[in-house]
Amino acid sequence: MSTLAIATAQEVFDLLRDDLTAIERELERDAVSSVTAITEIAEYLRAGGGKRIRPSLLLLAARSLGYTGHGMIRLGAVVELVHTATLVHDDIIDGADTRRGRPSANTTWGNEKCVLAGDWLYMQAFRIALEERNFKVLDLLIGLTQQMVEGELLQIQTLGRAVNEAEYYELIYRKTACLFSTSMQLGATLAQGTPEQEEALANYGRSVGLAFQIVDDVLDLTATEEVLGKPVASDLREGKTTLPVIHALEHGTASERESILWVLEDGGFRRTPREQIQEILHRNGSVDYAMVAADRHAEQARESLVDLEDSEFKRALLWVLDFVVARDK
Amino acid sequence: MSTLAIATAQEVFDLLRDDLTAIERELERDAVSSVTAITEIAEYLRAGGGKRIRPSLLLLAARSLGYTGHGMIRLGAVVELVHTATLVHDDIIDGADTRRGRPSANTTWGNEKCVLAGDWLYMQAFRIALEERNFKVLDLLIGLTQQMVEGELLQIQTLGRAVNEAEYYELIYRKTACLFSTSMQLGATLAQGTPEQEEALANYGRSVGLAFQIVDDVLDLTATEEVLGKPVASDLREGKTTLPVIHALEHGTASERESILWVLEDGGFRRTPREQIQEILHRNGSVDYAMVAADRHAEQARESLVDLEDSEFKRALLWVLDFVVARDK
Repeated sequence: MSTLAIATAQEVFDLLRDDLTAIERELERDAVSSVTAITEIAEYLRAGGGKRIRPSLLLLAARSLGYTGHGMIRLGAVVELVHTATLVHDDIIDGADTRRGRPSANTTWGNEKCVLAGDWLYMQAFRIALEERNFKVLDLLIGLTQQMVEGELLQIQTLGRAVNEAEYYELIYRKTACLFSTSMQLGATLAQGTPEQEEALANYGRSVGLAFQIVDDVLDLTATEEVLGKPVASDLREGKTTLPVIHALEHGTASERESILWVLEDGGFRRTPREQIQEILHRNGSVDYAMVAADRHAEQARESLVDLEDSEFKRALLWVLDFVVARDK
Repeated sequence: MSTLAIATAQEVFDLLRDDLTAIERELERDAVSSVTAITEIAEYLRAGGGKRIRPSLLLLAARSLGYTGHGMIRLGAVVELVHTATLVHDDIIDGADTRRGRPSANTTWGNEKCVLAGDWLYMQAFRIALEERNFKVLDLLIGLTQQMVEGELLQIQTLGRAVNEAEYYELIYRKTACLFSTSMQLGATLAQGTPEQEEALANYGRSVGLAFQIVDDVLDLTATEEVLGKPVASDLREGKTTLPVIHALEHGTASERESILWVLEDGGFRRTPREQIQEILHRNGSVDYAMVAADRHAEQARESLVDLEDSEFKRALLWVLDFVVARDK
């Protein structure tokens, strides 16, 4: 590994500043429909921001293999549009009130219009991707979006019952890691990387995506309501068992297990207060267990990059790993 | 025109029997997902049938230009999948209870799963279309689906207020004629027709689609509840003003106009009984006016085919026109 490690988010941002600015401009253009309501919703979602993690990964993958063309701007916008489309439909399905600290689109425009706005965003993503005139890009995107949609349906089917670790990993792969991985693979495809390079970068994306989602799920159980913008243990209340909870269910006492299952059964903390869940997780070392798993996936991501030629872009990809597991919100 | 006119639906069906059977097999294969609930919903929708009008148009367009390849089977399935995807999302939006005489998918599986099943069907359509490895096919399909989704949103925006004729035509173009037209154009594209042939067949599809939807809208106001499978004038009750109603609003007395607007306002027949609506339309010749418009579009469709070489497929396309305007359900 290089001694010139990238140390701050600012350095990564500086590295990608011009590309990310270009992607924002592309996203502004892409949010325009001939139908006003769609433009309003698309523009509301775009202006809501987000960390643009997926476009950033795509840029780093493409640039780490020496690519400098316009395709990465276009496809960077595409992966963000796909992400946004999934959020719009997921928020309808979850009946979510807020998203990124603002009213969710379905709260403002209603479910009917948001079903259609989500459809439109998926199609807009395919439309922009189609401009690249690259069948492989389209194959990757269609495969990706079907896996994500199927994953959300699997999620609905498991709500309210305790899943096992294999099911959990399947769900977070489809929810998060799949898009991270495809973003990396699209970058590698644009750069016409070797099959080995493409696989390595896709593996990086998959592993960092798993680590990212595990940390997200841990934060839901450990962070303060102020940081989360929603009450602690919301996932459990919504019927979703995440890695720390799965660990506690497998290693806790019969009584601890029962207390956790009550939350799933009640969809609330009537019989088991939130604090008691946190105590059970603490007693069983369940949060540590999940963080060790996140570290392990981050380490796998690091190992995926071992044959990648050194560059500031590779160093940024390595920095992302530290950021993902160390973040506190 | 040929003297060997095709006279019956059976003759058209015989002509396309093998192709339509192949499309059914393709649709059976396409209804399979790795997630059980999606397969269940997709299979339920497929088994529900439908007239397969759009695939038939695509086949007739392709074959009328001498095409015999497998692409028309694949894309025949694609246009039916797109049609099905729009119905699934439209039924959620309209809160529809039934579809083709059976419980609608949203009634059986719930809105949440059906949002995702609709997404999946759109993507499955694109996935199958992508196998054709033809960018123009993909451009046409993306343009089409965005127009249809935008159309449904325009429809929502106009619900409950009287639209004018121009708005009505815009809505039925996006709802029906656009997919008819694209089906024809896809057939012509497969057959590598000249730009003139492609335009002629696309125009045929557009005109026959407008005629088809006008007749559909007339039947909603004139057919019996037994034939419709739903009460007469359901469109008006749902806030949709169709061509006969628009004519009556423009040509009726102030009192007749008021009576129609009450239905839109109330979303029901509290102040104006259904029979009174039918009487108003009758008095103003509004149904005849709409049927003349349908005939005019059918005639335009016929004229679009004037330069198309004679064949049994061309004769079938001409037969379709008589069928569309003469049908009573």
